[in-house]
Amino acid sequence: MSLVVEKYGGTSVGTVERIQAVAENVAARARKGDQMVVVVSAMSGETNRLIGMARDISSEPSQREMDTLVSTGEQVTIALLSLALHNLDVSAVSYTGFQIPILTDDVHGKARIETIDGDSVKKSLVEGKVVVVAGFQGISANNNITTLGRGGSDTTAVAMAAALKADECRIFTDVDGVYTADPRMVENARRLDRVTFEEMLELSGAGAKVMQIRAVEFASKYNVPIRVLSSFESGPGTLISYEDKNMEQPLISGITSVDNEAKVTIRGVPDRPGIAYSILGPVSDAHINVDMIVQNVGNDELTDFTFTINQDDLQRSIELLEPVVKELNAETVVGDTNLAKISVVGVGMRSHAGIATGMFKALSEKGINIQMISTSEIKISVTIDREYTELAVRALHNAFRLDEIETKV
Amino acid sequence: MSLVVEKYGGTSVGTVERIQAVAENVAARARKGDQMVVVVSAMSGETNRLIGMARDISSEPSQREMDTLVSTGEQVTIALLSLALHNLDVSAVSYTGFQIPILTDDVHGKARIETIDGDSVKKSLVEGKVVVVAGFQGISANNNITTLGRGGSDTTAVAMAAALKADECRIFTDVDGVYTADPRMVENARRLDRVTFEEMLELSGAGAKVMQIRAVEFASKYNVPIRVLSSFESGPGTLISYEDKNMEQPLISGITSVDNEAKVTIRGVPDRPGIAYSILGPVSDAHINVDMIVQNVGNDELTDFTFTINQDDLQRSIELLEPVVKELNAETVVGDTNLAKISVVGVGMRSHAGIATGMFKALSEKGINIQMISTSEIKISVTIDREYTELAVRALHNAFRLDEIETKV
Repeated sequence: MSLVVEKYGGTSVGTVERIQAVAENVAARARKGDQMVVVVSAMSGETNRLIGMARDISSEPSQREMDTLVSTGEQVTIALLSLALHNLDVSAVSYTGFQIPILTDDVHGKARIETIDGDSVKKSLVEGKVVVVAGFQGISANNNITTLGRGGSDTTAVAMAAALKADECRIFTDVDGVYTADPRMVENARRLDRVTFEEMLELSGAGAKVMQIRAVEFASKYNVPIRVLSSFESGPGTLISYEDKNMEQPLISGITSVDNEAKVTIRGVPDRPGIAYSILGPVSDAHINVDMIVQNVGNDELTDFTFTINQDDLQRSIELLEPVVKELNAETVVGDTNLAKISVVGVGMRSHAGIATGMFKALSEKGINIQMISTSEIKISVTIDREYTELAVRALHNAFRLDEIETKV
Repeated sequence: MSLVVEKYGGTSVGTVERIQAVAENVAARARKGDQMVVVVSAMSGETNRLIGMARDISSEPSQREMDTLVSTGEQVTIALLSLALHNLDVSAVSYTGFQIPILTDDVHGKARIETIDGDSVKKSLVEGKVVVVAGFQGISANNNITTLGRGGSDTTAVAMAAALKADECRIFTDVDGVYTADPRMVENARRLDRVTFEEMLELSGAGAKVMQIRAVEFASKYNVPIRVLSSFESGPGTLISYEDKNMEQPLISGITSVDNEAKVTIRGVPDRPGIAYSILGPVSDAHINVDMIVQNVGNDELTDFTFTINQDDLQRSIELLEPVVKELNAETVVGDTNLAKISVVGVGMRSHAGIATGMFKALSEKGINIQMISTSEIKISVTIDREYTELAVRALHNAFRLDEIETKV
């Protein structure tokens, strides 16, 4: 008997019929004797409908009330899925975030899970019930309803799997696995049988939309193997787990792109210790996620400091930095949204030089100019003009022959 | 400074625009310095939309999951109304049933409030916030979400008013008060300036749909004066309170009708002690509300036992009673839905004989046959064939001259 956590996203539970199809899936597995915890998102469209009503009322709605509002979406799904399971003679019980409880901090809209008390869920599992859990939501110590931010249901699933020491966590989505590149951009993109947590973290951070990065972090921290599968067709999917020493590792796992970031540059910053903190402190205090950070050494002990953020946060970031510019005696702060981030990711990169060179060569051959460069142990990212996004991804996919079957390195 | 609880029903908060209108109303009062608690229902249509999805999945849905499902309706409204208040620069905070908490028993779909902890709400009021409360819902000791049944938001409002020792409880609805008869049936029906709790209890039980009977019971028990008002037009409404000795009391306050009841008759019951309990025990254990109860003495120590219930519970009641019929050696159990209950209500009735006679005379003059009769200190109810409902109400309204202004008795 295994304990399995499954997660179904909004598209997978988008209609009553699809909820019934998910119930059939879950029922088949439960009948084999597995203990099942099913995490679900809001029915697709529902969250947007709720946000739409709120926007009709207020352009700057309170985050606490938004969380109370949108968390109803998942609550509807858990009730309907439980009913669908009952209808198949499967004993099932729903849990909202506060009923488990999933305790989070109180950062509304982007809350982080602090602890999960698995006792009630375990009791229900022992009673032979399928446990249906509302994804995306939690409760703060002050008894406020919180949400985990975009894609938060993945995090809920992984955190439940960790708390319950589940044997496997299966993420059902509208794609059948993790690909070498977005198949909508690259026709001959290939599904990967497995990737490591490390690669998946870099892929998620670099724009692969299969899973939320925090969910992967959580899985990596608690060593919860994840399988990404399609809700709509059967197949092996992609296994995300720790690196297996005996596993043949490809040089490069995938090429990703992000085209919803913006760049903030503070020009003419005096080059002295503590500058990075003075600039990024207020930004991160406002819970704005910073992605790439580049500091160029300039003349006269002045430097330019550049970082990228989600473009939705651009206006806010500039407002936050205007007083900082004055305080630091810097020249000015400017924003720019005309950029895309293209990344090459692979654990094999560790032992191989020359990947960066190959990347720059491929881009230069297409006449694509590179704005910023940032590297990690297993990833190289560059930013380029946004209009070259697809061209760059296709050029790199070809240059590194990612359509060919994985070869030993 | 007064502490006022206001309740707005589904029609009053049926659209974003109406929610904004309610916010204006509440804001105006809050700006005068009153402490405000606002209880709201689900947006009209929302509860039916949710129930519709559940019915598409299951014909006999679990009551626990139904409560989890439909309670989202009020949760959406509290968030939206709080946002609308913020937008008018009014500080406001929403509370779901579990956040207050409103502790109920665990009879899903028809739960009863056990206790309300008013501390968090009081704290928010002291902080100068308008408190927006989800009506209709609570939480059981087992941490299950419960709902209070149809019209439960009225009960929430009155219970909050009692728990907070509010100065007034104002029920906003789509009618502008309590009438001598349903104005859709009787053209010259008249709005009453005030009625007593006792009368309102009888009127609610007898079919006046203005307020849920349990809300009136609660108000009476804790002496919470209620004012019923229209959400859409201003006016004095109707005050529901204890009888004032100096108040001029009309003989009769109103005529009501109920046409959604069914009659269950057990024929040929041996007439011995404990029979009523043997029959009604299983029915009330199933949380089916029994309205009128009539036992006719028959021949041969056999009797007929008849009671009325909501017609939705008819099938269930007959199923429950079939084994009882065998056990008691009774003849048979039969159901009938062709009936309407017509009631005449008024505290003045206490000191006046002849009301029953006047009622029977008026009905007989229209050729309407009476099936069952039941009386209380301030009410006389009869059942008749359903097709005569409007005719009977109009005949009685005229016979007792309820269109004329109240006169001293």
